[in-house]
Amino acid sequence: MELVTLAHGSGGTESAKLIKDLFFSYFNNDILCTQSDASLINPIPGVLAVTTDSFVVTPLFFPGGDIGKLAVCGTINDLSVSGATPLYLTAGFIIEEGFNMCPLEKIVYSMAKVSKLANVKIIAGDTKVVEKGKCDGMYINTTGFGVVEKYAPNHKLTAGDQIIVSGSLGDHGACIMSKRDMLTFESRLTSDCAPLHEVTEVILNASSNVRVMRDPTRGGLATTLNELIENTDKSMLIYEDRLPIKEEVRSFCDLLGLDPLYVANEGKLVCIVSQEDSLKVLKAIQNHPLSKDAAIIGEVTDNRSNKVYLKTYLGATKRLPMATGELLPRIC
Amino acid sequence: MELVTLAHGSGGTESAKLIKDLFFSYFNNDILCTQSDASLINPIPGVLAVTTDSFVVTPLFFPGGDIGKLAVCGTINDLSVSGATPLYLTAGFIIEEGFNMCPLEKIVYSMAKVSKLANVKIIAGDTKVVEKGKCDGMYINTTGFGVVEKYAPNHKLTAGDQIIVSGSLGDHGACIMSKRDMLTFESRLTSDCAPLHEVTEVILNASSNVRVMRDPTRGGLATTLNELIENTDKSMLIYEDRLPIKEEVRSFCDLLGLDPLYVANEGKLVCIVSQEDSLKVLKAIQNHPLSKDAAIIGEVTDNRSNKVYLKTYLGATKRLPMATGELLPRIC
Repeated sequence: MELVTLAHGSGGTESAKLIKDLFFSYFNNDILCTQSDASLINPIPGVLAVTTDSFVVTPLFFPGGDIGKLAVCGTINDLSVSGATPLYLTAGFIIEEGFNMCPLEKIVYSMAKVSKLANVKIIAGDTKVVEKGKCDGMYINTTGFGVVEKYAPNHKLTAGDQIIVSGSLGDHGACIMSKRDMLTFESRLTSDCAPLHEVTEVILNASSNVRVMRDPTRGGLATTLNELIENTDKSMLIYEDRLPIKEEVRSFCDLLGLDPLYVANEGKLVCIVSQEDSLKVLKAIQNHPLSKDAAIIGEVTDNRSNKVYLKTYLGATKRLPMATGELLPRIC
Repeated sequence: MELVTLAHGSGGTESAKLIKDLFFSYFNNDILCTQSDASLINPIPGVLAVTTDSFVVTPLFFPGGDIGKLAVCGTINDLSVSGATPLYLTAGFIIEEGFNMCPLEKIVYSMAKVSKLANVKIIAGDTKVVEKGKCDGMYINTTGFGVVEKYAPNHKLTAGDQIIVSGSLGDHGACIMSKRDMLTFESRLTSDCAPLHEVTEVILNASSNVRVMRDPTRGGLATTLNELIENTDKSMLIYEDRLPIKEEVRSFCDLLGLDPLYVANEGKLVCIVSQEDSLKVLKAIQNHPLSKDAAIIGEVTDNRSNKVYLKTYLGATKRLPMATGELLPRIC
């Protein structure tokens, strides 16, 4: 069974072989395979969107995905919700000495597969190998570039704007949590990890009044909504009975005393759109398989306190603060 | 003494505070501080160069630099030697729980300082915190992009082309090695870690016949030369008596049985240029403080074996193969 050694990160013969046999073979494209210090790409006409994320998720493989799929989707989604069409990714690997080549190949295959699906090229990479005990299997950084083709939602919120989520909440976080060493639940929990570039395209085609789109990852929906409202003179009101949450996620969160509104998603977005366009956007995305359970969950209000409020099942209104402390370390 | 906690990587209140107080404060620029999922930048007219690198150097601080300076310079240099003017960087941090805020701030300050010097903006970032024992203090990924303003050297080597190095060889690797736990030498060894964007600009201004530029990092000069020659029908001949190597680096390498030609550099480049332009390029870069010790060390030859040969002090010719195995783990 072949293992990754420190020599694979040395920049010498073994590095070159790993790069050619594995990365070039799966990420195969002209730009990457020139193997220069930097990759050259043709001019991109338009506003560029750039984002970076490091992924340290544990476990590396989980129902619905693995660290490779997660890394590519996470970066594609950050570009997509900014209104950009994802074009190129870079991938930086930090691998622990002794890591098995077989799961490494599976992870690289996952990255190649979902990149291809999203029509995104992985054009530059880097591999470092660290000694045993200086990493947890592997970490991946993905940095992405895209171009704004239609428009970049401008963030200005107006009272009456509707808040849409593209589907069930908390799936990724609950799935990862259930697979941790300490908690091996037998469950149907599956990560929602998916690339959202088509969903954002549908949204931007359906309305030119999208205020903002975001993917509620770490900290969950509640944290994302707080970030969106914090520098405004508005508030948000969310209706508990409209929140799409899968029964298995709700039960799992109940069991651990977690609130699914603070649990990470990796294939969902929140979109705030003018009241008049909201039903049009909702119907449009409900036709896409990744957002068939989309729902309008609340609205922007004139309350100047810039807070997020939840109208509960029982009719009470309570504040949904930003997440504090560490809910679920290494969820992505 | 404030320490980094898992909460600083949670995406919640503590993450937001760390980002604002530390990263926004040092990397301060309009693009970064919009704090979106992706940063938007105006169209860049021209061919883009893109590169990514993860830095796992140990120790984090060393004579001549630290992991932050190294990460920024490394990425600037990869862009510069490709013929591009570096414009923007992203920075992804993986930090070990319990890391002290004070060295973290020093590292971020180093990154800000050298970026400013190179007129490069850090426009997107990410911070993940992992549990104790799952990292070695901190790792940084920097991804950079720039624009080709003059020309991107085209790599076609011709017999007679001259091989120039911009200064003394092996300084970074020898310095890092001397500071490792097991080997605490008292020495004057200092890393050459520096941004080379001005040196490459001088080179491209001096000649339109630059075949290729590279920064010989991991694997050292010998590995870089082998990479450059491997897919050609030429060879290279290097003269031992022309190699600029500092006395302290030579002694240190002798002591450990290392060959400075395989030891990493982080502020040097190798440039191959047409014979007729070689003296012009040499003289031009000798006027820049970062390349005042530049030398022509050899030439491209018609020998079709695509190998690198060294003419020794004694007049013998021996092959300089590519590095194999792991010479110096975690040098960058």
